[in-house]
Amino acid sequence: MKQRIAIVGFGTVGQGIAEILLNKTAYLNEKYGYDYQVVAIADFAYGNAFNPDGLDLPLMLEEAKAKRKFSKDVTAMDTLTLIRECNADVMCELTYTDLSTGGPAIDHVKAALDSRKSVVTSNKGPAALKYREFAELAESNGVKFLIEGTVCAGTPVINLSEGPLAGCEISKIRGILNGTTNYMLSEMEKGMSYDDVLKVAQEKGYAEADPTGDVEGYDARGKVTILANIVMGVKMDINEVSCKGITKITPADIEEAKSKNSRWKLIGCVEKRDGKVVGSVAPEMVSLSHPLAGVMGATNALTFTTDMLGDVTIVGPGAGRMETGFSILTDLLHIFRTGK
Amino acid sequence: MKQRIAIVGFGTVGQGIAEILLNKTAYLNEKYGYDYQVVAIADFAYGNAFNPDGLDLPLMLEEAKAKRKFSKDVTAMDTLTLIRECNADVMCELTYTDLSTGGPAIDHVKAALDSRKSVVTSNKGPAALKYREFAELAESNGVKFLIEGTVCAGTPVINLSEGPLAGCEISKIRGILNGTTNYMLSEMEKGMSYDDVLKVAQEKGYAEADPTGDVEGYDARGKVTILANIVMGVKMDINEVSCKGITKITPADIEEAKSKNSRWKLIGCVEKRDGKVVGSVAPEMVSLSHPLAGVMGATNALTFTTDMLGDVTIVGPGAGRMETGFSILTDLLHIFRTGK
Repeated sequence: MKQRIAIVGFGTVGQGIAEILLNKTAYLNEKYGYDYQVVAIADFAYGNAFNPDGLDLPLMLEEAKAKRKFSKDVTAMDTLTLIRECNADVMCELTYTDLSTGGPAIDHVKAALDSRKSVVTSNKGPAALKYREFAELAESNGVKFLIEGTVCAGTPVINLSEGPLAGCEISKIRGILNGTTNYMLSEMEKGMSYDDVLKVAQEKGYAEADPTGDVEGYDARGKVTILANIVMGVKMDINEVSCKGITKITPADIEEAKSKNSRWKLIGCVEKRDGKVVGSVAPEMVSLSHPLAGVMGATNALTFTTDMLGDVTIVGPGAGRMETGFSILTDLLHIFRTGK
Repeated sequence: MKQRIAIVGFGTVGQGIAEILLNKTAYLNEKYGYDYQVVAIADFAYGNAFNPDGLDLPLMLEEAKAKRKFSKDVTAMDTLTLIRECNADVMCELTYTDLSTGGPAIDHVKAALDSRKSVVTSNKGPAALKYREFAELAESNGVKFLIEGTVCAGTPVINLSEGPLAGCEISKIRGILNGTTNYMLSEMEKGMSYDDVLKVAQEKGYAEADPTGDVEGYDARGKVTILANIVMGVKMDINEVSCKGITKITPADIEEAKSKNSRWKLIGCVEKRDGKVVGSVAPEMVSLSHPLAGVMGATNALTFTTDMLGDVTIVGPGAGRMETGFSILTDLLHIFRTGK
């Protein structure tokens, strides 16, 4: 049976997953028996469209790329009504992250789960602020709330802990959760100042015009919160995670690390300690002999400390357009293969 | 509903999974709703036992550890009959690996799948010699054939490629697949000769009395074959994998690598090349800047080259008693959670 998909937010990631689905149709069908239909798309800029028998996805991609409003299957339903009323099995929430209020993504997710649709999202807002509430709502409605794309989209950390590591008790997760700052620290080691490196990172598109979210550690803090809630299974609020960014690191600090055979990394950590789970984000001098020290550039890496396997480390790319698209695809496939 | 388990082969790994199940009963039940019953155990040394309502597992562990024959619920059925006739949902095949003939494990697996029981195994024989045949038989009988424990038991490579990387096309897998030889190469770098290192590895229990399987690369070749068949989805015979071990590496070779800022690693590789899948095992000089170069001691590491994520690397422990036990547990849980 075809999986019927609603896409809410048709920007970089939304268009990305649409392209991936179009390009990989034959491969996914052959390998997994996967077949799909996009029945609804909602976007603030391009409008809302709905066709219960499947939208004309190539046309809609063309229009969005040309920054034109949708011309076909346009619906008068507002986004929340569309989410509730459409015949999708799963809603992809791909609007922009707001880590303060979580809105409007939080309302989108609630509307979908309430109307018994699974949700797949790369939006850190609902995941960091409301994970447990939504996970419980999904479970009681017999659907799924999957969020691989919210933490290091190109490095499947959540699905690794949920699937291949199932059965292990995880006592600590520690790693490089933000590719932008890891790139900046890597460059600073080559002799550039913080301000110069920031300029280059912005030119390369790694850092936003307002880089606060990355360099102050807020992005990593959101991910630590998600890992605590999902992987550690505790209800942790984002404000309980201590947070220090990389803005105060000086060339003298860089030299000090070198002299100690170490290297600065912005480390996010969530750890069971004396029966409590503690989350933190802070720059650390990591010994060059540690696996995380060798992870350079815009790359993510996480080490899981487990009861049965000791340390297991995964290293992969951070969040780009293709990587985030992949994380959405892999969660869509998971829903398809497990029949929910 | 309780998962009913038959354990065939009650040596190190069989006793290991029994202990893990006993020790983790409460945790597994709370986290996954998992409950189990071991209804049959067959072992060449301790005898065959069967109780459709569950065996006395602590007693049987005690007897096996004391090298005594089983005293309770002993059955006259031979192993193949027991596998066929018992009421297990899943059979764990944990006898010793024979990479030449695969027997008797191959007969055990066939008997279980024929009688519609899922199979979980860490035995490389059936996986390396008959994977596709058994996977098809399992599918047509509505059961599973899971083999995470056959490749780097402590590093969940198969489940990683099947689950969290689903949707990616994998064009190459390359890595350190044999912990024993990696330990030996690490020690040789410190100045020991091949023969001296081998002695230490044998004393530490890393290498067998007859080390041929490890040092000639045969163990790694079996794993490459399994990866080709499962992850790459091609029918590759173990003899199609070119194979060279580490026995010819001299102190002069070690020095040469150092002078080139490199390090010897025994690399197993399976790769799509010009529409064909090619497998190989050989020592390689790996540049110190590559993630695999930093993997020292009895550790495994694999890099997956993918279409959507580029390179994703996983690093974890090799196969010990606990690690292999974990791999069996995680596959049992997978069967339980997906309802087969």
